[in-house]
Amino acid sequence: MTQIAKTPAPPYYAVIFTSIRNDKENQGYNQMAQAMSALVEQQPGFLGVESARNSDGLGITVSYWDSLDAITSWRDHSAHQVAQEKGREIWYGAYTARICKVEREYSL
Amino acid sequence: MTQIAKTPAPPYYAVIFTSIRNDKENQGYNQMAQAMSALVEQQPGFLGVESARNSDGLGITVSYWDSLDAITSWRDHSAHQVAQEKGREIWYGAYTARICKVEREYSL
Repeated sequence: MTQIAKTPAPPYYAVIFTSIRNDKENQGYNQMAQAMSALVEQQPGFLGVESARNSDGLGITVSYWDSLDAITSWRDHSAHQVAQEKGREIWYGAYTARICKVEREYSL
Repeated sequence: MTQIAKTPAPPYYAVIFTSIRNDKENQGYNQMAQAMSALVEQQPGFLGVESARNSDGLGITVSYWDSLDAITSWRDHSAHQVAQEKGREIWYGAYTARICKVEREYSL
């Protein structure tokens, strides 16, 4: 089961990635998602990730990072670049990525 | 179908609300979620919202705002306060809310 990320006291950074999956190549997508999920956890500055997707195809993945440089390094990682290219060409009907500075956090 | 929010050029603000639903009082929860969804769209400074939930209970709702003051006003709205109280007491096993400044955005 996916969990709520345990992040440090702010400030830190977040990438909100909202996407619409089409119905193409589900097996390839799921394999790549698993591979990227394992790889992102090894990246310098990675703090955590949360992900949810509705049955209608809209999904939100939020990854947390200790700096903007860490976000840029992950964006430019060669294996991640391959995944992004396939996402643009095959798997996503649309997406928006938003780079944010987390200023406050509170939890139950 | 839920859509990707059409937000203006950054900077603007986001509230990332990640939660774990328990199995309690689904009908009451769904009614309140619909009521809050209608009400939030009427709030000053509201820019849009995106929401997704996995079948295992983890959900992410991101609302977008033009200022921190708009976020505070929505937090303190009387009807929203009632919803938050029921969320803490009945519907959520856990949640984290993160207040963020969106600095960059890109889309497909």
